[in-house]
Amino acid sequence: MRIRFYNGKICTMEKDVNYIEGELWTNESYVEYVGKAKPSSKVFDREINLNGNLLMPGFKNAHTHSAMTFLRSFADDMPLLDWLHKQVFPMEAKLTVDDVYWLNKLAIMEYLTSGITANFDMYFYPRDIAKTSVECGFRTVLCGSVNSYGGSVEQELADYEYLNNYNELISAQFGFHAEYTCKLSLLEQLAAEANKRKLPVYFHSSESRAETERCIERTGMTPTVYLNSLGMLNNGGGCFHGVHLTEQDMDILKEKNMWVITNPSSNLKLASGIAPLEKLRKRGVSLAIGTDGPASNNCLDFFREMFLTTALQKISCDDVAVMDANHVLHMATVGGALAMGLTDCDTLAVGKKADLIVIDLMQPNMQPINNLMKNIVYSGSKLNVKLTMVNGKVLYEEGRFYIGTEAEEVYAHANEIIAAKR
Amino acid sequence: MRIRFYNGKICTMEKDVNYIEGELWTNESYVEYVGKAKPSSKVFDREINLNGNLLMPGFKNAHTHSAMTFLRSFADDMPLLDWLHKQVFPMEAKLTVDDVYWLNKLAIMEYLTSGITANFDMYFYPRDIAKTSVECGFRTVLCGSVNSYGGSVEQELADYEYLNNYNELISAQFGFHAEYTCKLSLLEQLAAEANKRKLPVYFHSSESRAETERCIERTGMTPTVYLNSLGMLNNGGGCFHGVHLTEQDMDILKEKNMWVITNPSSNLKLASGIAPLEKLRKRGVSLAIGTDGPASNNCLDFFREMFLTTALQKISCDDVAVMDANHVLHMATVGGALAMGLTDCDTLAVGKKADLIVIDLMQPNMQPINNLMKNIVYSGSKLNVKLTMVNGKVLYEEGRFYIGTEAEEVYAHANEIIAAKR
Repeated sequence: MRIRFYNGKICTMEKDVNYIEGELWTNESYVEYVGKAKPSSKVFDREINLNGNLLMPGFKNAHTHSAMTFLRSFADDMPLLDWLHKQVFPMEAKLTVDDVYWLNKLAIMEYLTSGITANFDMYFYPRDIAKTSVECGFRTVLCGSVNSYGGSVEQELADYEYLNNYNELISAQFGFHAEYTCKLSLLEQLAAEANKRKLPVYFHSSESRAETERCIERTGMTPTVYLNSLGMLNNGGGCFHGVHLTEQDMDILKEKNMWVITNPSSNLKLASGIAPLEKLRKRGVSLAIGTDGPASNNCLDFFREMFLTTALQKISCDDVAVMDANHVLHMATVGGALAMGLTDCDTLAVGKKADLIVIDLMQPNMQPINNLMKNIVYSGSKLNVKLTMVNGKVLYEEGRFYIGTEAEEVYAHANEIIAAKR
Repeated sequence: MRIRFYNGKICTMEKDVNYIEGELWTNESYVEYVGKAKPSSKVFDREINLNGNLLMPGFKNAHTHSAMTFLRSFADDMPLLDWLHKQVFPMEAKLTVDDVYWLNKLAIMEYLTSGITANFDMYFYPRDIAKTSVECGFRTVLCGSVNSYGGSVEQELADYEYLNNYNELISAQFGFHAEYTCKLSLLEQLAAEANKRKLPVYFHSSESRAETERCIERTGMTPTVYLNSLGMLNNGGGCFHGVHLTEQDMDILKEKNMWVITNPSSNLKLASGIAPLEKLRKRGVSLAIGTDGPASNNCLDFFREMFLTTALQKISCDDVAVMDANHVLHMATVGGALAMGLTDCDTLAVGKKADLIVIDLMQPNMQPINNLMKNIVYSGSKLNVKLTMVNGKVLYEEGRFYIGTEAEEVYAHANEIIAAKR
């Protein structure tokens, strides 16, 4: 299957955040050509006239709990730890493999409407999540989620091997839920395995003030210092949230080459706070963006996350010049891909994966065009996503899904699942 | 023209924030029936099957500078007063009446995509703004904007009379730009006229810390105390922004029946701060929401504003329970209408204006339906706006505009205008 996108603006994210007038050809799952308009003797299966619209790499959603779609608008307005223990965990205990299949599919649909072409998911039943993603044609990196309430390191390592050899759309990273849900013995075992195998490790950390304070009370250390003292950060990896970080924490994250993956909507809605992204950026810590799960966000909308990634820094730093929109676009595409270990779909270049989106500029929120790339971060919306392609296949176009299931069937299942759990 | 919307969920906002299964009929510009499904012997010009989707009052955008669409993504990342004086004012000085006509039309289109059915606009050439709105079929309340750099109280009163007798879609309120752009003699003249005629007065106030501090340096009073000392608040009215308010300011706003119209995206992006909405709400101050202009926001998206109206209170109060989504929906519809003096399009009831929207629930971000009304505030998007009707006429439906001009013509004019100003 060869597809030619022509007569458009192409943003490759290869060097800087900008675009050229040109075209892009795909061949199976790869980009075969990207550059100025040029004649070709090749036969294309489909030629898509971009009509001057923008083609760019898809957004990479670097922290998700996709199947939590069933808790959307279920228990809003509760503190993080109460919310987890009283609402989320009891409901999750009732989830079946089949439920996760449908709920994950619903999230993938929402990702597609928002121009997201890959997610970094932490949830139960990772092999089944992978199966759903492959069925839909979507790219997912699974993150280990073991904790003292469920799972084992042995099972996680088995899943890690299985998933990294399962399908070209799927990969896995080593991880655990969070310091506050893992006993010391488990953390020690995780660190030992990570160090033996040189694996980066990913986990929730420093999300709420209460969580951070309890760690200090218990260990005398912040979560970052504590995990570092256990050798957990020796091979890099990433910290989801990273809201309550000390200067020392930030120095450690930089020194250990850890990613910080920010979730601004979720951090607002759960009153967790505003992550010190500008301070991290200045230190050279690598940054990416995630929506978090739909129970806390409650939507899976990268335009909202991109706007908040810059706008919240402006008030927290009391400086409108910080966190330029171009930097945010880099985080949302290249940063997200690299954070989850995807080195072949970060930019649009020959030989890279064809994970891309078409942004409709012929909408009032994109006009006039004083600065196209800033328009995307500051005024973009799901309404601007004309097409989402993953691995060379169109999965969403002009409001329709091409994921092998009818949308209505997914919605019906999701509503049956919540009705049965109440 | 009689239109019947049937087989849907109807949220009237009449008593509480909820919905019934039912239908709604319009007759010319009015709601003729709203309630449960019922047979009718009337002949309808059009019958719209809602297919289970939600019909509700349109959002009321209670603070706008619509024609500033030409400055979208033009001068991001500058402090408020620099931004106004160095970027906005010099560019605005070049604007012609014809420019404002097209730029206003562009904003109206964006309002329609976001389910906004009325705006409260403050800008140059109010009579021409009114003309554009009427041509589009859109409802606009014009707010006086006199200041010591332009306009006169006499001209504003003449416009006020003219606009309040111009067209059923148009009305006007008395106002001025802001305390910091008006000399004392002008403020005294405004207060005298307002008191003579018993007019509520609307103005920008307490938006940035610098503005508030300069007022204290100059007058020894906060903007609210200062304007109150001049008798400006005696007949009510409203304060746009209201970010930096003291306890005394809030008491005065309550005592004087002043509205506070919040603009959360703009306040973030210009690093102005977070308005103390929850404190105002607890005091009983009436609240509404506005997008502000597209130069500072940069988009005109009520879903973003609604989410931020609740989410920012959660972090600023360090309490996830504050500013419930239902309260936000009330602010966005009923509050906005009443703030700008529109008493006939606040809710959907027999005899009220048919200013309404249809929300598409068959989208992944609206599923499953644990709580429909919270879904709208927490996960709604422009993508969910299927139809926007103003004054009984469909102006936007399934992505197409019915405003008497082709979208492409408006975009072309907007781009010509910015090219000519550079």
